[in-house]
Amino acid sequence: MIFFLISAFLMCGVESWRPNRPISLLPPLRQGKLVQAPLGNGFSYTTYFFNQRIDHFGFANGGTFKQRYLVSDQFWNHNGGPIFFYTGNEGDIEWFTNNTGFMWDIAPDFRALLVFAEHRYYGQSLPFGSATYQNVSNLNYLTSEQALADFAELVQFIKVNTPGAANSPVIAFGGSYGGMLAAWFRIRYPNIIYGALAASAPIWQFTGLTPCNAFYETTSNTWLQTSKICVANVQQSYQTLEIIASQAGGLNFISSTFKLCTPLVSTTDIEPFKAFLADMYVNFAMVDYPYAANFMAELPAWPIQVACSYLAEPLKGEALLTALSQVTNLYFNYTGETKCVNWTDDGSTGSLGYQGWDYQSCTEMVMPMCSNSSGMFYDVTWDFQKVSDDCYSRYKVRPRENWITLEYWGKLLNGVSRIIFSNGLLDPWSSGGVLQSISDSVIAIQIPQGAHHLDLRTHNDNDTRAVRGAREQETNILRNWLKFNPV
Amino acid sequence: MIFFLISAFLMCGVESWRPNRPISLLPPLRQGKLVQAPLGNGFSYTTYFFNQRIDHFGFANGGTFKQRYLVSDQFWNHNGGPIFFYTGNEGDIEWFTNNTGFMWDIAPDFRALLVFAEHRYYGQSLPFGSATYQNVSNLNYLTSEQALADFAELVQFIKVNTPGAANSPVIAFGGSYGGMLAAWFRIRYPNIIYGALAASAPIWQFTGLTPCNAFYETTSNTWLQTSKICVANVQQSYQTLEIIASQAGGLNFISSTFKLCTPLVSTTDIEPFKAFLADMYVNFAMVDYPYAANFMAELPAWPIQVACSYLAEPLKGEALLTALSQVTNLYFNYTGETKCVNWTDDGSTGSLGYQGWDYQSCTEMVMPMCSNSSGMFYDVTWDFQKVSDDCYSRYKVRPRENWITLEYWGKLLNGVSRIIFSNGLLDPWSSGGVLQSISDSVIAIQIPQGAHHLDLRTHNDNDTRAVRGAREQETNILRNWLKFNPV
Repeated sequence: MIFFLISAFLMCGVESWRPNRPISLLPPLRQGKLVQAPLGNGFSYTTYFFNQRIDHFGFANGGTFKQRYLVSDQFWNHNGGPIFFYTGNEGDIEWFTNNTGFMWDIAPDFRALLVFAEHRYYGQSLPFGSATYQNVSNLNYLTSEQALADFAELVQFIKVNTPGAANSPVIAFGGSYGGMLAAWFRIRYPNIIYGALAASAPIWQFTGLTPCNAFYETTSNTWLQTSKICVANVQQSYQTLEIIASQAGGLNFISSTFKLCTPLVSTTDIEPFKAFLADMYVNFAMVDYPYAANFMAELPAWPIQVACSYLAEPLKGEALLTALSQVTNLYFNYTGETKCVNWTDDGSTGSLGYQGWDYQSCTEMVMPMCSNSSGMFYDVTWDFQKVSDDCYSRYKVRPRENWITLEYWGKLLNGVSRIIFSNGLLDPWSSGGVLQSISDSVIAIQIPQGAHHLDLRTHNDNDTRAVRGAREQETNILRNWLKFNPV
Repeated sequence: MIFFLISAFLMCGVESWRPNRPISLLPPLRQGKLVQAPLGNGFSYTTYFFNQRIDHFGFANGGTFKQRYLVSDQFWNHNGGPIFFYTGNEGDIEWFTNNTGFMWDIAPDFRALLVFAEHRYYGQSLPFGSATYQNVSNLNYLTSEQALADFAELVQFIKVNTPGAANSPVIAFGGSYGGMLAAWFRIRYPNIIYGALAASAPIWQFTGLTPCNAFYETTSNTWLQTSKICVANVQQSYQTLEIIASQAGGLNFISSTFKLCTPLVSTTDIEPFKAFLADMYVNFAMVDYPYAANFMAELPAWPIQVACSYLAEPLKGEALLTALSQVTNLYFNYTGETKCVNWTDDGSTGSLGYQGWDYQSCTEMVMPMCSNSSGMFYDVTWDFQKVSDDCYSRYKVRPRENWITLEYWGKLLNGVSRIIFSNGLLDPWSSGGVLQSISDSVIAIQIPQGAHHLDLRTHNDNDTRAVRGAREQETNILRNWLKFNPV
């Protein structure tokens, strides 16, 4: 489970600041701390490495790399118990393993083997070691198809080489991009995967399948649920920023009020700063969990409520910006340990996870996004050609607008079976997800008041009734698929 | 429709002759003449070229090549009539277009658009022009996955760019390897392809799915149906060849009796000569059509009956070999225009079709074959490692034994729909085909007394009742799928 956002604001925003600053995509991992949370309860796993082909779809390059995967067999029925297989996404697999508590919570009941497979090009699964990101030749094997083939080969290997696993049904679990992979794994390799739980998987966030404004509309709606005044203040703030920035001392005021590590030095800095704020609002909606959590940032329970508490009255001018700075302070400095807000971090020095997703967004994972000024945001159009040209200038590759839809069948999923698509409705990504069941076997679960793949997280005393219900429904469906009767 | 055979006898036969002679795979096209048969009846098509990506599964190589495809719209209902899409196989698409009369025969009733797409690396669809076969780097994009992606992109292009085709259902047709592609096209891209007719498609001729001796067993059975004495004579002939070859003047006797272009000069030549004969028996079974045809060779109706007429009595020694030479003369010189039998042709100077299939057999299409001495053949074991080593020495690639089964789901086709698998039971390749229906929607049609994809050939006055029935059944199924009512 994770989150990714190629910011429409930065991709499609004002051109003027671009030449000075490499395009700043919102990276998921640069803000999140990769905390190795102890699993507790005596849970543990073992780390393995599997020799994968670098290229599954050609034979000229016979090279291999070591793919990392983590296994826990402490709950497993060694006589054919099911395998719960986590389809790793764009980051270190240990982090996902520690943040996918739901699998650990239900494994004992299902007597399941847990396997967490790292996605190639992330974490320690680097096809070309330290040179993995060095050039486009080395990046060439970073695709969802290669990743799925990795998973398929790995499952085969595990089943063949683990006594008692030969007939074990395998269920794929994943969230966000990992959820897309879980669903596609079932679609693409039903011979390997028996069923899938795809949490917050925006498989339809592609050209022609979802309106480009849906993502930010959903974000606005999430904030509107908390406070209309709050949203009106945010809407007002963009113009206020521009006005104040154009005044004498205005840039200094903004820089000091928001405690920016890099002060604004020109009115042209306002555009990327607005984009920075817009992305933050998206992130709030993704992690609007009912309890304090440290997923993308360390935050209290229901962080949007807290954010809106600073914007509860109609505000204007400097008072508005001062209140808004409390929101950025909440998001970036809830612990009180951050000295300044690093708004210019473009991720280029960040984790490999960021670099990899940036490349994926420039190739297969090109997700159209646009916004208007009706809610939390301002007008941004989607310009595929501009995105393509930018990708070409960075990587010498161009995205293919319709490829994913061709490869994974878009909305023509009638022939598919045994996939659960769960979505928290607070989550901006739910806009590109499967929100209605397609058949008795391809089942959508909506989680009102749920953020990004909340259901995959471990149980919590403050969980809402909705997410408890969703997890129960998911468990029942899995039982039904596996004809599993708990002892 | 076509035929291919990586001879078990040459792949796995005696090692001794190898160092002197490059391994001789039985190429499909080196023996068949690529006759441009006039279609007659005023049928015609137009040739087009489509810019395809060289690499669908990576982004670093953004190059394209021109894929040839042929279109006939003379029967088409321009308002949404179906598209019959031939999935080209390992050869020149014009030849397939001229040899797939069934599509032309039924197109008027269905008011179908006919499209014949050439397979990359064959005919004129060469990704690197004259350098296409130059090295393994250039060969790297010759895979079934790339070919299917070509077909998918081409269908999309045609539907978008042909007025009236946007909602046209597309049916894939193919025979032999092309039949495998037709079935896999439906499996892999059900969003693009509505249904498929896969004729004589040995999709299960892979490791673990079909016993390695099935292919030659089936061949023997085809000959046994005609004459047990004939088969006994052939069985006897291998030892006879060895005995006579070891006698003074024996090699000369054999060379002159069989009119060999290249005389046998050593007793070690006997092993490849036996393999040459064995492959010929396979070919006879593939083209044992009920009427004179020129598919792999110019032959009379029911050629096995004719062949066995020379071997109708128990024979021995030189008499046996003399009779056998009439069989080779039948196969290689039915027209009487051939001066000698070119038994050493290893195909290396043959058509591109041969080269391409050779590479494919060394990568994805590695089909285990073995035989014993119970029927027409002699003992040959299957040694994957030896095949792999040989491929490596030739191309610096190694086949992947289980890849095709992983990619296209092996026998786990319960979730698939709308595929017809037809097989002529005389055809050796039927042994690796789908001979029993998997569901109401994945339907097997057996054609007794039918050779290699006889049903795809145009109707003939001498067609058997069985093949007429098969074609009628196929047409009815297509009508049912398309809810088509002939006017």
